[in-house]
Amino acid sequence: MRDTYHDDLDSLSERLVEMTRLARHAVARATTALLDSDINAAQEVISGDEQINRLDQEIEDTAFSLMARQQPVASDLRTIITSLYMRGDLERMGDHAVHLAKIARRRHPDSAIPKPVRSIVLEMGHQAELLVTKAGEVIMDRDPDTALELDKDDDTMDRLRRKLLQRILAPGWEYGVEATMDVTLVGRFYERFGDHAVHVADNLVYMVTGEKREDYDPES
Amino acid sequence: MRDTYHDDLDSLSERLVEMTRLARHAVARATTALLDSDINAAQEVISGDEQINRLDQEIEDTAFSLMARQQPVASDLRTIITSLYMRGDLERMGDHAVHLAKIARRRHPDSAIPKPVRSIVLEMGHQAELLVTKAGEVIMDRDPDTALELDKDDDTMDRLRRKLLQRILAPGWEYGVEATMDVTLVGRFYERFGDHAVHVADNLVYMVTGEKREDYDPES
Repeated sequence: MRDTYHDDLDSLSERLVEMTRLARHAVARATTALLDSDINAAQEVISGDEQINRLDQEIEDTAFSLMARQQPVASDLRTIITSLYMRGDLERMGDHAVHLAKIARRRHPDSAIPKPVRSIVLEMGHQAELLVTKAGEVIMDRDPDTALELDKDDDTMDRLRRKLLQRILAPGWEYGVEATMDVTLVGRFYERFGDHAVHVADNLVYMVTGEKREDYDPES
Repeated sequence: MRDTYHDDLDSLSERLVEMTRLARHAVARATTALLDSDINAAQEVISGDEQINRLDQEIEDTAFSLMARQQPVASDLRTIITSLYMRGDLERMGDHAVHLAKIARRRHPDSAIPKPVRSIVLEMGHQAELLVTKAGEVIMDRDPDTALELDKDDDTMDRLRRKLLQRILAPGWEYGVEATMDVTLVGRFYERFGDHAVHVADNLVYMVTGEKREDYDPES
């Protein structure tokens, strides 16, 4: 039989995985909101953020109470601290989905995303979903090797963002100042969403191996 | 005579205060880089970020070693955890100064900041300095009441950002797509710099009082 202490420790991971599911759903719906000018999707993301914030708070409360009651050491302590870091990143990912949704809402019933960059934004949305899905798997499987893959996935995101900015700067971009501002920020928010997913994976490496991501060598 | 344990705890605050000093210097120089198209200032900010990152790492190392060796409880534990949060925010503030400096460097020898928004960017730079300076004082004095002031200072920053965006959207903005992108991001980076300063102050409130910022009432 498990004791409360270990149940509480396990609940940290479970809640983190649940946060990745909610963040994935949020960014997917935000992409829909942007591309289809779907106001319901936008509202859903904005009001759904509360659920992510609640999990964030629950993880913090559990972590603090574990530390105060149990004085955990070594790997348990590492699990608690890295959980605190990861929930911070996941909470920010929810915020970035909200930022995207708010841009969609502000431009409704028009779309914030002009034609020449729609396919790039769609790809960025898919890449964001991929990154957060993998981050969830990495937490669930406690798998540092898969965690390393996220770097490459995030390179793809960074490439997409550069492509987006090049498209805006290319001749023929005549969509006005507001669209330029919106698309610039949209690119930034997807990029940051990806960065946070990488941080989550990095922290998982540290949680499991006790080594910083930079020092972890799966071959050794 | 102090023991190593308490010296280590004190060193957390000292390093955090030092991080605020470096972040203040970084954002001040980044503002100069942007407004004066000063490439040396830009380079200084970019290469100086290493120093902020080093302090960030030292705080993390000290915090982890304190937790592992001493099993701190109650207020000491709170000091350690909130120090970890605060150094994360301060590290990001350094990053935002770097982002600003890189925009200045990319546009050198031109200025990234067109004439109609120069005074607003100057004000945002000053507001950023004010926020990080106050965050440093709040840490040094362990003063939750001054911490509450940062909210209002950050409202000023948010107002400046809205003013900046209105100016870009107003008729007569004819500075092209690249300037629009740059100024949009400049506004975002200053705003985020301010948000992180507020987080630092919020965490100080929690460190000192054990109450979340929202629940802390200086009158009670």
